[in-house]
Amino acid sequence: MSDPIRHLQSLLPPHNTRHESATAYAPANIALCKYWGKRDSRLKLPVTGSLSVSLGAHGTRMTLRRAEADTLVLNGEAVDPGTATFRRLFAFLDLIRDPAHRLTINSHNTIPIAAGLASSASAFACAVKALEALYGWDLPPQLRSILARLGSGSASRSVFDGFVEWHAGSAPDGMDSFAEPVAPVWPEFRIGILTVSEAPKPVGSTEAMERTVRTAPLYTAWPAQVAHDLPRIRQAVLDRDFETLGQTAEHNALAMHATMIASWPPVIYWLPETTDHLHAVHRLRAEGLPVYATLDAGPNLKLLYTAEAGNDLKAAFPQLIQIEHTPAP
Amino acid sequence: MSDPIRHLQSLLPPHNTRHESATAYAPANIALCKYWGKRDSRLKLPVTGSLSVSLGAHGTRMTLRRAEADTLVLNGEAVDPGTATFRRLFAFLDLIRDPAHRLTINSHNTIPIAAGLASSASAFACAVKALEALYGWDLPPQLRSILARLGSGSASRSVFDGFVEWHAGSAPDGMDSFAEPVAPVWPEFRIGILTVSEAPKPVGSTEAMERTVRTAPLYTAWPAQVAHDLPRIRQAVLDRDFETLGQTAEHNALAMHATMIASWPPVIYWLPETTDHLHAVHRLRAEGLPVYATLDAGPNLKLLYTAEAGNDLKAAFPQLIQIEHTPAP
Repeated sequence: MSDPIRHLQSLLPPHNTRHESATAYAPANIALCKYWGKRDSRLKLPVTGSLSVSLGAHGTRMTLRRAEADTLVLNGEAVDPGTATFRRLFAFLDLIRDPAHRLTINSHNTIPIAAGLASSASAFACAVKALEALYGWDLPPQLRSILARLGSGSASRSVFDGFVEWHAGSAPDGMDSFAEPVAPVWPEFRIGILTVSEAPKPVGSTEAMERTVRTAPLYTAWPAQVAHDLPRIRQAVLDRDFETLGQTAEHNALAMHATMIASWPPVIYWLPETTDHLHAVHRLRAEGLPVYATLDAGPNLKLLYTAEAGNDLKAAFPQLIQIEHTPAP
Repeated sequence: MSDPIRHLQSLLPPHNTRHESATAYAPANIALCKYWGKRDSRLKLPVTGSLSVSLGAHGTRMTLRRAEADTLVLNGEAVDPGTATFRRLFAFLDLIRDPAHRLTINSHNTIPIAAGLASSASAFACAVKALEALYGWDLPPQLRSILARLGSGSASRSVFDGFVEWHAGSAPDGMDSFAEPVAPVWPEFRIGILTVSEAPKPVGSTEAMERTVRTAPLYTAWPAQVAHDLPRIRQAVLDRDFETLGQTAEHNALAMHATMIASWPPVIYWLPETTDHLHAVHRLRAEGLPVYATLDAGPNLKLLYTAEAGNDLKAAFPQLIQIEHTPAP
């Protein structure tokens, strides 16, 4: 086959120069059925499908402006061209933009970085949308998702609002590995952030993912876990069945951490407070409060609940940051 | 086939009445490759093989005396006949003793219960050895191990000193599921107990094991984990290769806990201090100290090291109980 990235580039419309600048927005997302493990690291093709909820007004807003040289301002601070952040973002833009165009980027996370949600997902999804606006394109949604995926796997989901499923696909060129909306937002659905640590992670998530796939015999059963969880979560979203959604999402997140704990050397993102909070969530649930936890590649918990549990949770966890699940601005 | 337990009973010599009483001892053991999951709960047949180290002078000493009625004194305290402990032990003795014989049992754990090692393994192994002495038998070691297994799976290993492997076997009657010595004790080998909690476990280990097998998709890969770990641990014992032994034993223990964490409802035995101690062990190792951790179905850590690391570990963990790996008295 021809090179999959060249093939994608051949699908793009011409780079017209009508606009001098453009602004776009993409939400962050939290996976309810996790993406853990790549089958192709260059094309960022996942081993399994995944399903997330986008975080409405919490994400990345980015303005691109045609310029003489590439520059990046992130949350008001200039980023050095030698940094990994700078190089990774512009290497990604090079896949899509006119090779002759240089850009000034002003990117702003509308979610506190402290909350541990300033992921690459919203940034890369937003970059695709901003380029699209700059060049006056209106790409097919699947192509938009595939392009975002090349920046960061989970960015494939952040091009949509609401509940979003990323299909694993099976084609070697990744043309069937894109996200699609499952359902719009669920007004009562809430996400609460319990920050345990804002320190840099001891192991980056890309390295953790690769180590798991390479060294954890238990990981061979991860596709079976997802085969169990993904259809249940999808149906629970469609049915607005919060209990099934919460149980399955927590089971899935703990199973993902289990595969890391079972890697070698072990990847244990949990800190003492993580363990403590997990037990607290289980105690609250035993007392009748419908609340579930999910965790990404780090020590912080995200609580899943519906609006009516908000006050009880705020009492149990005064530090809880409650995220209103509203549509993007 | 005939009933496997009747078949076993048919292999026993006659119950002679030469002795009025008998005393025996069996060591506790700590699995380096864990036993987790039964394929037959009545015969206590495991899904996989396992390998342990017996704890020398730390175990159960039991005296049986022919009597008019069954009584049990455990660590100096009379045990009520209505308790699960009493009923489980005498139901086990009923499999082996002359049905007409009643017994007074005086059992003493030579290891502090507080250390979390007063497991059923040494008790059931010791009960078999004490009955054997009472009846003047000299059973083949494999039969002794099989009988102990009927009391508690891991008791099959506690009938031997040193490093012991329990073969999973494949026969439905369990006649090929017994333990055998791999190697005698390794004089420099040490086990250190880091007690985190002496509170009763929120989920018993039998229930935890069953829940894992029933609800954790990741458990389907547990046999692959053991297939990876067991031969490595066996060879490391034979080679006295401490690094390979420690790495593989810690990986195996964390993978066992991973299968519990990935069960539903989740079985999270870890307490905040468990997580803290695990990170401390990893820090010490990063600083060059050869120490590894293993955990059984509970929050407490057992450290694996060799004699020369003892002082450094005692400095890092003042509460550490160091177990000399000496032969049984």
